[in-house]
Amino acid sequence: MTFHSMWAELLPIGRSSASGGYRRYAWTGADLDCRAWFKQQAESRGLTYEVDRNGNQWAWLGDPAAGDAVVTGSHLDSVPDGGAFDGPLGVVSSFAALDELRGRGVDLAKPLAIVNFGDEEGARFGLACVGSRLTAGQLTVDDAHRLTDGDGVSLPHAMEAAGYDPGSIGPDPERLGRIGAFVELHVEQGRALDLSGDRVGIASAIWPHGRWRFDFRGEANHAGTTRLVDRRDPMLTYAETVLAARREAELAGAVATFGKIAVEPNGVNAIPSLVRGWLDSRAEDQSSLDAVVGGIEKAARQYAEAHGIDLDVVRESFTPVVEFDHALRDELARILVKDTDITVPVLGTGAGHDAGILSGTIPTAMLFVRNPTGVSHSPAEFAAEDDCVAGVIALADVLEGLACT
Amino acid sequence: MTFHSMWAELLPIGRSSASGGYRRYAWTGADLDCRAWFKQQAESRGLTYEVDRNGNQWAWLGDPAAGDAVVTGSHLDSVPDGGAFDGPLGVVSSFAALDELRGRGVDLAKPLAIVNFGDEEGARFGLACVGSRLTAGQLTVDDAHRLTDGDGVSLPHAMEAAGYDPGSIGPDPERLGRIGAFVELHVEQGRALDLSGDRVGIASAIWPHGRWRFDFRGEANHAGTTRLVDRRDPMLTYAETVLAARREAELAGAVATFGKIAVEPNGVNAIPSLVRGWLDSRAEDQSSLDAVVGGIEKAARQYAEAHGIDLDVVRESFTPVVEFDHALRDELARILVKDTDITVPVLGTGAGHDAGILSGTIPTAMLFVRNPTGVSHSPAEFAAEDDCVAGVIALADVLEGLACT
Repeated sequence: MTFHSMWAELLPIGRSSASGGYRRYAWTGADLDCRAWFKQQAESRGLTYEVDRNGNQWAWLGDPAAGDAVVTGSHLDSVPDGGAFDGPLGVVSSFAALDELRGRGVDLAKPLAIVNFGDEEGARFGLACVGSRLTAGQLTVDDAHRLTDGDGVSLPHAMEAAGYDPGSIGPDPERLGRIGAFVELHVEQGRALDLSGDRVGIASAIWPHGRWRFDFRGEANHAGTTRLVDRRDPMLTYAETVLAARREAELAGAVATFGKIAVEPNGVNAIPSLVRGWLDSRAEDQSSLDAVVGGIEKAARQYAEAHGIDLDVVRESFTPVVEFDHALRDELARILVKDTDITVPVLGTGAGHDAGILSGTIPTAMLFVRNPTGVSHSPAEFAAEDDCVAGVIALADVLEGLACT
Repeated sequence: MTFHSMWAELLPIGRSSASGGYRRYAWTGADLDCRAWFKQQAESRGLTYEVDRNGNQWAWLGDPAAGDAVVTGSHLDSVPDGGAFDGPLGVVSSFAALDELRGRGVDLAKPLAIVNFGDEEGARFGLACVGSRLTAGQLTVDDAHRLTDGDGVSLPHAMEAAGYDPGSIGPDPERLGRIGAFVELHVEQGRALDLSGDRVGIASAIWPHGRWRFDFRGEANHAGTTRLVDRRDPMLTYAETVLAARREAELAGAVATFGKIAVEPNGVNAIPSLVRGWLDSRAEDQSSLDAVVGGIEKAARQYAEAHGIDLDVVRESFTPVVEFDHALRDELARILVKDTDITVPVLGTGAGHDAGILSGTIPTAMLFVRNPTGVSHSPAEFAAEDDCVAGVIALADVLEGLACT
């Protein structure tokens, strides 16, 4: 099965005809359809298929127990109305790279596996990389049990409803101990490769990033009858904080975004009692990020004080800077530059990935494929098929280089 | 049954234990419980109970067909997490005033009716005063059929599901033609009576007011990887417009509020593709309101242009200034000042009411009862029982004065 035909099979799953974007949320019907596709791809190639204790899917060539395995893969779930490439490009390219290696008649010295990590985007339960976090012991079982979606359905119930046993979720050091290297291929989520004119790049590091919830509490009141001077309107403080976030991010060369909001009572003729805004911020290093978020919070508190608004700021998640394994990164560059005529830029990224989660436990690397729009998490996210095929060849070269020595 | 015991019966219906506010939305279970209470109050007093073609409830003392009826009443539905008084105070006071008149042994020369208008707040279908608008011919049957709630349920389906026949909704001039005067008692939605030290006031006019939907469309993108300069983030434009609304309202001595928002995709790590904000604005006269809304729209378009945002502004509803019938207003003042020792201030209001809708067709007046918090559409809305009883006596005086002559 070619890259093209695998891609075409996945394209309709979970696509919203209204937005043109994907709604493949963890453990929903669209996610289960993607998982069925993965299983079918594994079995049609005679690979050993298994689901681990945290619901991640694996397809093995060779003996999983032999150790020092070379693993590649990504995820198949999406953000709300996301694009087709973020995640699926890595999984489809993994199967295509395996086919390429078989076509070359390569004799692998190490076991090779393809993985689909569950719930990478965190769109449903609010926490990203749940599958890899659980496996790496970076999310406790208790905390995982407390995750609920917007309808109040807990993660274990969602897994159970989808036909998976949530009874044994938790750290899986034995599984990770069998892996010698993990390489994740991913569509680039910016325009660096487009600007440099390269098809494929190697990741250097993931910026430190976090999510903060800002709860602005004022007083609900009638929008038509309450004098301006008598108001405690948290929407004003929220608006001022949104603009402060942009200013602070500009100053630090970082990014800061308020993309999610919840308002109570959210009535057209009601001054809100509560405006809850979520800040996502990332910067090149820890001190820059601290400066950005500290500056935003300071501005928000000044505005809140001035308007009689109560403000709570809660850090909901945080991931320190992730430096990918330098030896593995250099090995990838050596393989790719030796075997091809291309240059391979080394890029930082602001996006989190399962590769970032695993990098604390096992040697991990990432390959990026050019995205001419630079757009991500939107239907406009794109990679040309030529570039995707170049990514497959690069991944096959890397897997061959790592697994044959 | 005393005011106090009627009030106590209504209090638990539709109250959210989480917020302490009321969720009595049109044609939902809580609304039906309120309607059952109304019917029971009517029947226990031997009044003639009927539901009109638009689902409004009526309780008649005397012959409805006799004409020149004096009608009082209000509504029993609520905004999301609203207070206990907005609406119910008028209905409960109407029954209590009828009891007061009976206690006085007054001989009424005209028929008297108490009405509960359906769906005054518009919390469910987005349009206020649906029951009175339909009756007065200010909402076409076609437009009413197109009203849907957040779950996509249409108004006719909601009525049908609640056991009411939606087949004959529409204008009811014959019914309105039998009414000589309508008087609505309402809790004040501001602090004017508290500041002047009066228990009861009379309405002069309702400010012109409207609702405008601002759709800011940008480009969805990854919050972690998209450079600030590459962004088209509509949240920034929304934030700037919220602050512009406050400035313009301050300049004009008016009010302007963004209390409702909808964001797509509303993901923590996604730059929004769409931020939809609803503006509610009201001012003393038409030219002030035009200046406020025009100023906000102009500022929004400048910001939108600067950020690469597409902006659509749609006026969703509009109500011109309502001057209550001057002769009836003067008559109320004469009755109240003659019979009691109190002063009765005459007040404007920014809030819409069924009385405002009907004022285009029949002579209409309103009485306000002091609200010491000035708060409205919130659980903090309040009126002391002494003041409520003063309101009942004032309403009884008015009904006696109007119906005995």
